[in-house]
Amino acid sequence: MSLIVTGTIGIDTVHTPTTAVERVLGGSCSYFAAAASFFGPVRIVAAVGGDWPAEHRTALTSFANVCTEGLEVRPASKTFAWGGRYHDNMNQRDTLFTELGVLEEAPPKVPDAYRDSQFVFLGNTHPLVQADLLAQFPTRRLAVADTMNLWIDIAHQELRALLRQVDGLLLNDSEAEQLTEIRNPISAARRIIEMGPRFVIVKKGEHGAVLVHRDGVAVVPAFPAEQHQVIDPTGAGDSFAGGVMGRLASTNGTDFAAIREALGWGTVAASFNIESHGLERLRTLRRSDLDARFAQFREMVMLG
Amino acid sequence: MSLIVTGTIGIDTVHTPTTAVERVLGGSCSYFAAAASFFGPVRIVAAVGGDWPAEHRTALTSFANVCTEGLEVRPASKTFAWGGRYHDNMNQRDTLFTELGVLEEAPPKVPDAYRDSQFVFLGNTHPLVQADLLAQFPTRRLAVADTMNLWIDIAHQELRALLRQVDGLLLNDSEAEQLTEIRNPISAARRIIEMGPRFVIVKKGEHGAVLVHRDGVAVVPAFPAEQHQVIDPTGAGDSFAGGVMGRLASTNGTDFAAIREALGWGTVAASFNIESHGLERLRTLRRSDLDARFAQFREMVMLG
Repeated sequence: MSLIVTGTIGIDTVHTPTTAVERVLGGSCSYFAAAASFFGPVRIVAAVGGDWPAEHRTALTSFANVCTEGLEVRPASKTFAWGGRYHDNMNQRDTLFTELGVLEEAPPKVPDAYRDSQFVFLGNTHPLVQADLLAQFPTRRLAVADTMNLWIDIAHQELRALLRQVDGLLLNDSEAEQLTEIRNPISAARRIIEMGPRFVIVKKGEHGAVLVHRDGVAVVPAFPAEQHQVIDPTGAGDSFAGGVMGRLASTNGTDFAAIREALGWGTVAASFNIESHGLERLRTLRRSDLDARFAQFREMVMLG
Repeated sequence: MSLIVTGTIGIDTVHTPTTAVERVLGGSCSYFAAAASFFGPVRIVAAVGGDWPAEHRTALTSFANVCTEGLEVRPASKTFAWGGRYHDNMNQRDTLFTELGVLEEAPPKVPDAYRDSQFVFLGNTHPLVQADLLAQFPTRRLAVADTMNLWIDIAHQELRALLRQVDGLLLNDSEAEQLTEIRNPISAARRIIEMGPRFVIVKKGEHGAVLVHRDGVAVVPAFPAEQHQVIDPTGAGDSFAGGVMGRLASTNGTDFAAIREALGWGTVAASFNIESHGLERLRTLRRSDLDARFAQFREMVMLG
């Protein structure tokens, strides 16, 4: 089934304790789409500026399943740019700079050809923009939104309105706590379900994720990466989301059991993503690599 | 098969953000034995002082499968006592006091009738004492040791010698890092395996545990408890260990697949233990409760 992602395309500068890269392709939309593309076609809706490097377009379109018809280039604008520095433990990072660029302008348009999209992922942006985008997919089967602390803080009511319209919400544990004032991620997710969505996925970084659904609870640890495999965690959450939604769209799954299984594919997609800066690792990845690691991971979490 | 645990019996005083108890039955041996007893007989080797409350003995022997022949009462000595206060997040705690008592004296004796024990768990104590205890189980099939930062620090060589004699080591993530100077728990566990044991179980508190074994890797998240279910985390690690070893002894399992499955039983045992102070919850628990939650947990982590 048709999958669409709306979000950011960024130019990332990343420092880790051992490596650094400047101006590589990043942004939620890029990571999501790259991961989702292993499962089937994925349509992107995003905007970039006239400064968007030609090699970034090449990198993104090298994923055969990524449809860029909804990628808007605005020659007079600047692409969103972000710089960050990871701490020694690779789990925390400081933002070095943020240049919003096109993100301060009108949101990108949804091409008419995209309006029949069935699986919709609303990348993190202002909840009013997310609601406006959502309205453009009238025949959707599953809509999932991402969000962040900024919107929980400054657009709380708009976010609450959005929550009444989506099927699922994806957020990390500190955001779940901020939204509900409940520290426990399971109890926080239950409270969020009372606000509207059928399910909530709480991401816990290197500790995996929890799915709280009206029909059940599922838990998935992160893939147990070795130290030398963890090069750059940037985009882990977005490639996780891309793997989850890509898998659901490819199997036409929307129920609890389908989402639980999709969490495993998201986990495995993210585990490859962190093995390089930017999309480098995903660019050389084959679907058979993904399948093999999923089978390995399924064994690792099996309790007989 | 016969299971034995050597460790501490303590008198615990615990403060949490919402509750407090004074002088309840605690100690690694108590929690381990209570959890393990749901799977079959468990022998304990430990010492207490003349001040050990009669109701603590009643509480411990109320677990029908716990054999206290190796419980030494020393009338002129004091029982180990510990007091702790949990922070708001229930994951960190401060020690309020520690009265070593019998722990400063000679270790307890192993009854002759225990020498045929097949499954041996060496609770956390000085590695020289652990090695001495271990030598008294010449026909053991599986020996697993616990340890802590203190011994890694002040008895490093003795611990390294012990590691050459045990099959498995159980420790938490910060201890694994301290022992190996490797932050990543998987890579740290691999280094520990090079020191001798066939497998290492790294506990990550509310984030579950990882098994790194010469024959494979397994990951188990913690049971997704709701906020109101988490009353007192004291003994979570020990009841986890008791569940793991109890299950292994009851199935006579020693290989990778058996340990992987046993991690699930340990997780479920610990999830009940934290629902009360002391052994209160485990005292009213039925084996059928444990079975039901294990089945539920297996579903929660299933990836299809």
